Amino acid sequence: MKFIEKLGAVTEKNNSLVCVGLDSDVAKLPDGVDQLGFNKAIVDATHDLVCAYKPNTAFYEARGAEGIQVLKDTCDYIRAVAPDVLILLDAKRADIGNTNAGYVQFAYDYLGADAITLHPYLGREALEPFLARGDKGAVILCRTSNPGSGEFQDVLTDGKKVFETVANSVAREWNTNKNCMLVVGATYPEEAAAIRQIVGDDLWFLVPGVGAQGGSVEATMRAAQNAHGDGLIISSSRDIMFASSGADFAEAARAKAKALRSEINTYRKGK
Amino acid sequence: MKFIEKLGAVTEKNNSLVCVGLDSDVAKLPDGVDQLGFNKAIVDATHDLVCAYKPNTAFYEARGAEGIQVLKDTCDYIRAVAPDVLILLDAKRADIGNTNAGYVQFAYDYLGADAITLHPYLGREALEPFLARGDKGAVILCRTSNPGSGEFQDVLTDGKKVFETVANSVAREWNTNKNCMLVVGATYPEEAAAIRQIVGDDLWFLVPGVGAQGGSVEATMRAAQNAHGDGLIISSSRDIMFASSGADFAEAARAKAKALRSEINTYRKGK
Repeated sequence: MKFIEKLGAVTEKNNSLVCVGLDSDVAKLPDGVDQLGFNKAIVDATHDLVCAYKPNTAFYEARGAEGIQVLKDTCDYIRAVAPDVLILLDAKRADIGNTNAGYVQFAYDYLGADAITLHPYLGREALEPFLARGDKGAVILCRTSNPGSGEFQDVLTDGKKVFETVANSVAREWNTNKNCMLVVGATYPEEAAAIRQIVGDDLWFLVPGVGAQGGSVEATMRAAQNAHGDGLIISSSRDIMFASSGADFAEAARAKAKALRSEINTYRKGK
Repeated sequence: MKFIEKLGAVTEKNNSLVCVGLDSDVAKLPDGVDQLGFNKAIVDATHDLVCAYKPNTAFYEARGAEGIQVLKDTCDYIRAVAPDVLILLDAKRADIGNTNAGYVQFAYDYLGADAITLHPYLGREALEPFLARGDKGAVILCRTSNPGSGEFQDVLTDGKKVFETVANSVAREWNTNKNCMLVVGATYPEEAAAIRQIVGDDLWFLVPGVGAQGGSVEATMRAAQNAHGDGLIISSSRDIMFASSGADFAEAARAKAKALRSEINTYRKGK
């Protein structure tokens, strides 16, 4: 199945544009719960409310080979419990062509992820091993959510900013397999609106930065959704996963995910 | 010890600006040799001839948790056999601030690497967890060696190209701990010369792209070395590691590494 079809199917089925970031920092886990057990409990509690899970590799690599095994077991568990829900691997990779084959193998063959986040700096030619896979999503960093993202992303080039050049290239030249998405931070709604203008209605955004990082759901939805009331996935990590530090963490995560889904849907055009 | 001091010490001790890329693609290993055994044999055969090893994480992640264990065992082995030789982790990472802590832990605490390669796209603020470590190198992608690297890196901004803006920012603003390096592809000697002009003599380059990718040692040395006859490390992977596919692979790798060291040293100013 094509990535874009899988994305459309799950957002419709669960009536949800919510992505839960599985940034399972072991220092923040509730007492007596290990990283894998924590992830499983979050997935059990939320999988009917979300369209995607987004494990960030940094929180697993930090623990070396053992952490990578937990990441794999987490992905296997998501597929077993909720085969429709997407796994977006937040790995922020990108190397030269022949080397990316190793990351393709890691993300798609080993972990079975549906998509991976990628840096654009090396250009389309380098990312071809990802772009060629119409069954998998290539989620390109465009305007990131961090405070200092403008340092290079906002550099002006012939009246256009670098992030606008990236958005334009991805929409017009990289997306021949209809499998590209763009990372657009909720912390920059003006920039998100500019990107939506550039790319039109067909390209989907992955939007981190609501909640702990300060982005607003309302501002994001007004700026970034497309004419069909979708075209974006809003990702929340800490606010959902660590909604409670007690034994009721999974219940609390469910409540937060449900509230986020409702809040997002309030602002969807035509829904 | 500061990263820049360790770098100076090993290049002097081994009279070498050679870095061997440990891109140990399992599909290319000689018969009967596994990934770890291969790496150990290459290290045994070359460690007195080089200043650094550069394992690329993609070739290990491709094999999942097992591959990460081989990467760790390889790093441990290098430290045991050749404690002076640098381990440059070619991981091409970069995430937002709090998340990079996981990659710092992976590269420095778990693997014990001396440096890591990083994408510049998220800006200095995001990379602070790497830049703050004066004992470890932050090797920033500037002008990469791949054929399509110009797509965004050459975009003109106020008469300067994006890669020149990156070079200038890293040299003038990011390098307060004297631990930054720049990745500059051997396939683009003109651009390398432009970067040397911008950054002066103090900033070191990591130069991939000689050999299989088509870059020339002579052109690289003329373009990229500093006034002291150093300021760069030239990395070769396939040409050295896979110099022979037979049982004599380690011997053949030694011969190639020795020849590359000599060739580079021929062009060093004042040596």
